[in-house]
Amino acid sequence: MKGYNVAVVGATGAVGQTMIKILQERSFPVKKILPLASARSNGHTVDFMGERITVEEAVPAAFEGIDIALFSAGQDVSLNLAPEAVKRGAVVIDNSNAFRMDAKVPLVVPEVNPQDIHRHRGIIANPNCSTIQMVVVLKPIHDRARIKRVVVSTYQAVSGTGLDAIEELKLQTAQLLNGGSPEGRVYPHPIAFNVLPHIDLFDDTGYSKEEWKMIRETKKIMGDENIKVTATTVRVPVINGHSEAVNVETVEKLTAEEARSILAKAPGVKVADDPQNKVYPLPASVSGKNDVFVGRIREDFSIPCGLNMWIVADNLRKGAAYNAIQIAEYMVQNSLI
Amino acid sequence: MKGYNVAVVGATGAVGQTMIKILQERSFPVKKILPLASARSNGHTVDFMGERITVEEAVPAAFEGIDIALFSAGQDVSLNLAPEAVKRGAVVIDNSNAFRMDAKVPLVVPEVNPQDIHRHRGIIANPNCSTIQMVVVLKPIHDRARIKRVVVSTYQAVSGTGLDAIEELKLQTAQLLNGGSPEGRVYPHPIAFNVLPHIDLFDDTGYSKEEWKMIRETKKIMGDENIKVTATTVRVPVINGHSEAVNVETVEKLTAEEARSILAKAPGVKVADDPQNKVYPLPASVSGKNDVFVGRIREDFSIPCGLNMWIVADNLRKGAAYNAIQIAEYMVQNSLI
Repeated sequence: MKGYNVAVVGATGAVGQTMIKILQERSFPVKKILPLASARSNGHTVDFMGERITVEEAVPAAFEGIDIALFSAGQDVSLNLAPEAVKRGAVVIDNSNAFRMDAKVPLVVPEVNPQDIHRHRGIIANPNCSTIQMVVVLKPIHDRARIKRVVVSTYQAVSGTGLDAIEELKLQTAQLLNGGSPEGRVYPHPIAFNVLPHIDLFDDTGYSKEEWKMIRETKKIMGDENIKVTATTVRVPVINGHSEAVNVETVEKLTAEEARSILAKAPGVKVADDPQNKVYPLPASVSGKNDVFVGRIREDFSIPCGLNMWIVADNLRKGAAYNAIQIAEYMVQNSLI
Repeated sequence: MKGYNVAVVGATGAVGQTMIKILQERSFPVKKILPLASARSNGHTVDFMGERITVEEAVPAAFEGIDIALFSAGQDVSLNLAPEAVKRGAVVIDNSNAFRMDAKVPLVVPEVNPQDIHRHRGIIANPNCSTIQMVVVLKPIHDRARIKRVVVSTYQAVSGTGLDAIEELKLQTAQLLNGGSPEGRVYPHPIAFNVLPHIDLFDDTGYSKEEWKMIRETKKIMGDENIKVTATTVRVPVINGHSEAVNVETVEKLTAEEARSILAKAPGVKVADDPQNKVYPLPASVSGKNDVFVGRIREDFSIPCGLNMWIVADNLRKGAAYNAIQIAEYMVQNSLI
């Protein structure tokens, strides 16, 4: 079997580390792995298939000979280095916001729009974490009943911000338990025992960028500009695993039972829905898993054709690293690389 | 000024303690306070106006000579003892679910439907915590623009469950920070660093009782059966203070600016809405305050007449104890007692 030279840009971050873990778990055909990061990570190492590999500095020349470059080091790094990687012959799968809404760049969730991968010109964008887990569940509903409108409220874990946010949550929590008064450093307000309706920057509409990502990326991935979305995105004191309360209005009527049966057969989805027996997805339980979990599937009695659902996934895996590697796997399987 | 004999049933619980605190803060005209609880609380004391008062057992004879009985000891205690208190001449303000949907019992939020207090027959019901804070904000919007439909997702603090839930959250959090694996005792799953889409019991529709309370109580308090509500209620690892992402569809168009200006003048509401300067209500900040706080007020661009709002309040205060005492104050001011 052919092997690939794979660069991971942002290899010391929460998503980068998860990418390296998943490449091993899934026995991705790696010939050589090249962990890259900023000069700040000089001297760091990562473990891959029993070997300790030194992290190198992410500079243009590093991409010579690379087949696949997985980027997760923020928008600025992607804007600077993704074109350099492409120029040197690599396919870039980019987890940042840099290229997602670029009409020439496919924005892909493999369960939803794998066909879009074929039209790439070097860069394929990985969607925002909270969008990915939602569209995996919306797609089979849309195919059957046509979605008109989505109202989503999120409960997002701090791992989505990065490793320093995980440390901040733990530190602040310990401080509060010991009677202290923590101050936010990563977040604008303390996150311990609190919830912050603030993810990414706000614009003059009063929406945050995270909310606009859910609105715009959903339409692009689903390939349907008619799907209306409104979103409120909220950070909660959870280490890992994003949850979403998703309200959907459809054109055709679906009962909860029909929705459950459609979702039980959907790729990448696991239905966990027996609330009377305390079964519903929980972020602490799905952390470490690749699938998207859905439960609390109920008819919305406030409109003729509506559903409520509770969607949970590991934001570092399906929301980021796993989705990127699924894209790479699709390219390998379809000889696109 | 006339003084009243006030019984607090459930005086050792989270809401009962808050009731006693608020009676003092507001200089409610108390002639005698009588803290009552189950026999389990024998020997407990509460402090009131500098005096240490022994908690007595909640039995029918305890209500002799009581003018106002504030109940917050659960549905069974209310079902058993509220009629006994009324029989002995007391007015009962009941914080349990026992009488809320009884057509003969007023369900009151003083900012919304104070007029309903006048038709009481001895018992006045205090609504569910998550409903109270929502309707305080919905009422002025409804008066101006008529609300058709509400989609609400909640982020509810553990104090709503009681003092043992606060202890469970703290204990589990400390265990997890020290590498342990906590198990739920109060809640069916660990609540530390987790979110549970489960508040109260589920029925065959897949909804929880908490969700039905928000749907049904909203119509009753607002006095309008045409207001459609759907809800997803979720417990989050916050000590005190409920938050809600509320999506509203109205008949008349309201801009975010108009909504903000209506709410700025609304009784019991404080607008905290400048997200670009990191200003929005947070549960950890509103804990200890009596008002309902609203921010993140934005047009919902997915429908012609829609708004998104973020509503936060102290669930022990406005969501329970303060609302009950506001009802008592209204009765005193209007010579209804």
